[in-house]
Amino acid sequence: MFVTLKPHATEAEFAAVVEKIRSLGLTPHPITGTERRVVAVVGNTGSVEPEDFAAMPGVAEALRVSQPFKLVSREVREEDTVIDVGGVPIGGRAICVMAGPCSVESREQILEAAVAVKKAGATFLRGGAYKPRTSPYEFQGLREEGLKLLALAREQTGLKVVTEVMSTEAVPVVSEYADVLQVGARNMQNYALLERLGTCGKPVLLKRGLSATIKEWLMAAEYIVAKGNPRVALCERGIRTFETMTRNTLDINAVPVLKSLTHLPVIVDPSHGIGIRKHVPAIARAGIAAGADGIIVEVHPRPEKALSDGAQSLTPAEFEGLMRQVRVIAAAIERPIP
Amino acid sequence: MFVTLKPHATEAEFAAVVEKIRSLGLTPHPITGTERRVVAVVGNTGSVEPEDFAAMPGVAEALRVSQPFKLVSREVREEDTVIDVGGVPIGGRAICVMAGPCSVESREQILEAAVAVKKAGATFLRGGAYKPRTSPYEFQGLREEGLKLLALAREQTGLKVVTEVMSTEAVPVVSEYADVLQVGARNMQNYALLERLGTCGKPVLLKRGLSATIKEWLMAAEYIVAKGNPRVALCERGIRTFETMTRNTLDINAVPVLKSLTHLPVIVDPSHGIGIRKHVPAIARAGIAAGADGIIVEVHPRPEKALSDGAQSLTPAEFEGLMRQVRVIAAAIERPIP
Amino acid sequence: MFVTLKPHATEAEFAAVVEKIRSLGLTPHPITGTERRVVAVVGNTGSVEPEDFAAMPGVAEALRVSQPFKLVSREVREEDTVIDVGGVPIGGRAICVMAGPCSVESREQILEAAVAVKKAGATFLRGGAYKPRTSPYEFQGLREEGLKLLALAREQTGLKVVTEVMSTEAVPVVSEYADVLQVGARNMQNYALLERLGTCGKPVLLKRGLSATIKEWLMAAEYIVAKGNPRVALCERGIRTFETMTRNTLDINAVPVLKSLTHLPVIVDPSHGIGIRKHVPAIARAGIAAGADGIIVEVHPRPEKALSDGAQSLTPAEFEGLMRQVRVIAAAIERPIP
Amino acid sequence: MFVTLKPHATEAEFAAVVEKIRSLGLTPHPITGTERRVVAVVGNTGSVEPEDFAAMPGVAEALRVSQPFKLVSREVREEDTVIDVGGVPIGGRAICVMAGPCSVESREQILEAAVAVKKAGATFLRGGAYKPRTSPYEFQGLREEGLKLLALAREQTGLKVVTEVMSTEAVPVVSEYADVLQVGARNMQNYALLERLGTCGKPVLLKRGLSATIKEWLMAAEYIVAKGNPRVALCERGIRTFETMTRNTLDINAVPVLKSLTHLPVIVDPSHGIGIRKHVPAIARAGIAAGADGIIVEVHPRPEKALSDGAQSLTPAEFEGLMRQVRVIAAAIERPIP
Repeated sequence: MFVTLKPHATEAEFAAVVEKIRSLGLTPHPITGTERRVVAVVGNTGSVEPEDFAAMPGVAEALRVSQPFKLVSREVREEDTVIDVGGVPIGGRAICVMAGPCSVESREQILEAAVAVKKAGATFLRGGAYKPRTSPYEFQGLREEGLKLLALAREQTGLKVVTEVMSTEAVPVVSEYADVLQVGARNMQNYALLERLGTCGKPVLLKRGLSATIKEWLMAAEYIVAKGNPRVALCERGIRTFETMTRNTLDINAVPVLKSLTHLPVIVDPSHGIGIRKHVPAIARAGIAAGADGIIVEVHPRPEKALSDGAQSLTPAEFEGLMRQVRVIAAAIERPIP
Repeated sequence: MFVTLKPHATEAEFAAVVEKIRSLGLTPHPITGTERRVVAVVGNTGSVEPEDFAAMPGVAEALRVSQPFKLVSREVREEDTVIDVGGVPIGGRAICVMAGPCSVESREQILEAAVAVKKAGATFLRGGAYKPRTSPYEFQGLREEGLKLLALAREQTGLKVVTEVMSTEAVPVVSEYADVLQVGARNMQNYALLERLGTCGKPVLLKRGLSATIKEWLMAAEYIVAKGNPRVALCERGIRTFETMTRNTLDINAVPVLKSLTHLPVIVDPSHGIGIRKHVPAIARAGIAAGADGIIVEVHPRPEKALSDGAQSLTPAEFEGLMRQVRVIAAAIERPIP
Repeated sequence: MFVTLKPHATEAEFAAVVEKIRSLGLTPHPITGTERRVVAVVGNTGSVEPEDFAAMPGVAEALRVSQPFKLVSREVREEDTVIDVGGVPIGGRAICVMAGPCSVESREQILEAAVAVKKAGATFLRGGAYKPRTSPYEFQGLREEGLKLLALAREQTGLKVVTEVMSTEAVPVVSEYADVLQVGARNMQNYALLERLGTCGKPVLLKRGLSATIKEWLMAAEYIVAKGNPRVALCERGIRTFETMTRNTLDINAVPVLKSLTHLPVIVDPSHGIGIRKHVPAIARAGIAAGADGIIVEVHPRPEKALSDGAQSLTPAEFEGLMRQVRVIAAAIERPIP
Repeated sequence: MFVTLKPHATEAEFAAVVEKIRSLGLTPHPITGTERRVVAVVGNTGSVEPEDFAAMPGVAEALRVSQPFKLVSREVREEDTVIDVGGVPIGGRAICVMAGPCSVESREQILEAAVAVKKAGATFLRGGAYKPRTSPYEFQGLREEGLKLLALAREQTGLKVVTEVMSTEAVPVVSEYADVLQVGARNMQNYALLERLGTCGKPVLLKRGLSATIKEWLMAAEYIVAKGNPRVALCERGIRTFETMTRNTLDINAVPVLKSLTHLPVIVDPSHGIGIRKHVPAIARAGIAAGADGIIVEVHPRPEKALSDGAQSLTPAEFEGLMRQVRVIAAAIERPIP
């Protein structure tokens, strides 16, 4: 349920609503928009009626939301969330570009990649230090050493760093080095991790699970926000279908559906979404055209030698070509790429 | 297998290749490109070796194709197929726009729709006269009466007509009135129908089956082309996945994959692809941005009264808005919309 | 909507109900059970109220059905449909066993297969004369010659013949030779074919489409029954999922769901359902244990030389082993295999 | 790669093989069967040749395995793994029955459930103390209090306890109270958790992820075994498909495929697999008939009041009925239920 206050409701009226929610054993989550305030009521609202609030002074309306997600819903907050990452936004009019290798492999590799993607126009450097691998016998990442190399690349280029965190134990160390913490597809419903990220103080990039519905995905975001961290961006990276010619099936439908349901920024990952290098630019263009707020792209100085995901990683030159194409589409729909 | 001739091979050299193929009990399908000729070898080529042809005069190379499709493959024909429909192209640089109601319902409805979509820039009128319906108790279309109304709309507007044919029996009557015959998703592997369309003399718009792989879809096109009709366009209209918020999941990945594998034109159907009116323009933009050669969109003068698919049909005003957005994307990638 | 008459309603009361339905522009489908009569009301019942019938003499109740299928629904007919195929039943307590090669290849092959499956306990011989193949270049079946060989095998063994019909044009010739006409997965929503089978006078085995929902499948059966042919059996043959280790994913859940929703017999096809010879018996056992009324199994005298589906075909000896296992399961749940 | 020793190889020969593997920078995992010993070679074996081992004394053969899983593979260990849980086996000829409520809700509820399922023949009590819920606002379980109640129920009934662990942090406390630790579908690829369970000293029941392939599932098991814990059982609980009439689609094909690929025990979960109370027994029967080593079933004293999964939970009386049916199937295939 959420309680919407009138545009000129007083502080006392607001406080009374909050107090009443608490007195019912529920948790109030006030959300301040530019024109009005809304208080989301979190907890089992089964026995509470909207009428209990609708009659209070200063209240415009009280509604039971039909969707199970609340804090991430556009019904609760109309304006787009813009996440400020040390001066660089995720969300809003500007298209955000994240790029870099699948895994951090060496000092030379990550610095070379960082310089290249910065030059082509990226503002975020991606790179895995902790790698979730299907097999226990595959390369699992450089771990803390990888985080240090990412921080070094940030120092040298000014790029912000986004990297995956795979366990609650690693949240402190990843938070120490990274600007944005990524949750991988396999961990989308790792609730212990989601709850821990709710109090980590860093923005989170939440990837969609391989067969997660849009509703489940938004509920996973709700876990993080409900624990106190509103800085969550969603990343569509392809779903699992019967098609075997492509690695995954990027769900382009999810982009406009999400933009309509939630105020959180939506990023698309064409690299995992199709998994074939030569087709990554077409999918990046489509994502922006459909209304995504940014893209995250795998770029490697020498894809043929990559320790992971070489088949879908672009060379720096290919990434420059992709950026030219994406800028044209973004300009056409009047969205700047800084 | 296909045998590529040298750019300046003589007619006699070409004839010798064709003759040799026939002598092996196989069928030659000559394809004439702008620079060279290729002869596709159709039939069980298991016992034939490429070397049998490679040494012949005028032959550049002979290759066994790895993919099971041949005539529709870009390996066999490099240049894009452009289907000329009475002067209006499907395929090539120009983006083709098909629009109209799900079903032809009445004289007034189809004429009003035709005038509106023509005004907004469509060159094809779509509209179902024979409707495949999940239930035997639902509206099945006006049948021949519907075909006559489509022809009337063509007369009054100059739009070309694309409409579905559901059975071999109906091929003659639909061919009499329509410019392009559409095969619906449920009939993508109705081989009797595909073979019949191979000799119907009209272009075919072949929709992807609900759970068809890209390979199966191309093989369905191969059935039509192998019977003698090279004028086939492919239409991606969404696949079936676990997601329930959208009607289907438009497979945007299929667009660049198809453009790479086949020379046939690729159309996207955002209306069936997402099934939610307000999101149709976003998916149309994405389809064009990904490289599709055209779109097919459901437009109804009064969607709220439509006998079928009202929830995904645009009003004429909404379709005009979509066309403005699509023109901007098409212009950005330097593809004209006439 | 359906109107249930009281157990002792008179003929005049029954006739009045039928007349009233007709007077409303709808079609009555009377169904006679052992205890009572039900009249299904077919057509657009949107403007008709159950109360219009409930007050009539002899009427027990009138209900709008929530599911879109009517004639195939257990709500309309409680007792199991038992299809009598010249004295051999499909449906009822006895488990029905259909077996034979994927394709009819030669006189020797089909006779050898027929004798073997008869000996092991099958009562139906399966075998394709018309083969739907993904590629136009693959073996398409012996066509009418194949039908004649099936009829010859019936003559020599007494087995009933079930074989696929792929087009409306072929319905007469297939009906001439076969006892049961099979609709393949790819044609499950070929409505022209379904309607034609509604008047063919032969029992129909309707396979589930590759990605058909249970509801769509029952609606496809409804098409046949609504046209006048109540002798339809359903065949679960596996659905398409992301799993690549097996050919399809046999949906075992569909068995009890169907047995609850419909009175039609349910057959499982473990051969296509898993597609791996050594695992066919396990899936056949599971199907019977779940409540299926029969199985259809691919058996070939020499699977390694089969022109199609060799990888999933059993040898006669393997089929005998399967039958022993299936008999044990059937006996355990007190269902005889004649 | 794995190195198989001859039946009568000496200890010295065995030690030499192990030493050689270590000298190549790889890890040896000796597996002792009843007839022979096999040493699995774990690590990047790309540069090692089977011939390096095949010529050593006492070695029967050295083979590179085609599948990426090793320790869980039947190629490495032929005999079925039987997990001894304090005298009660999982795996082997006997069918293992686990039953109990979805969540532990109260002392009365869990004791009542335990007594009932024990009486009907279960040897394991299931019940969630930590509940993964799609929504952060739903009941999350009684946590440690729930574990204590499970231990109390074990004390009073002698049943072994299986319960879910959702995070690495909770592994110690769950290990303290439970006999078997369950990994839920959403955590199947939570690699930090899998690795932690590799050293927990307790048997693990690993559920299949919602859209996990069989190969990915076996690789997840491999993570646990590779870290030192060979006591892993697999639980098929249904996959996600397009079908909406059932909660999930139980993949019955997975049962024989797994029994062929791995030596680990395979349990089926008909409750989550179909999600409809009245159909749970049919799916339980099918699972056993297909070759599963056990079942896990949701049973609640009063399903209509359950805090979770009420729609698929059986009453104690219904569970007794299910057990009677399952015993009949198990007896038919000569597998005892103690």
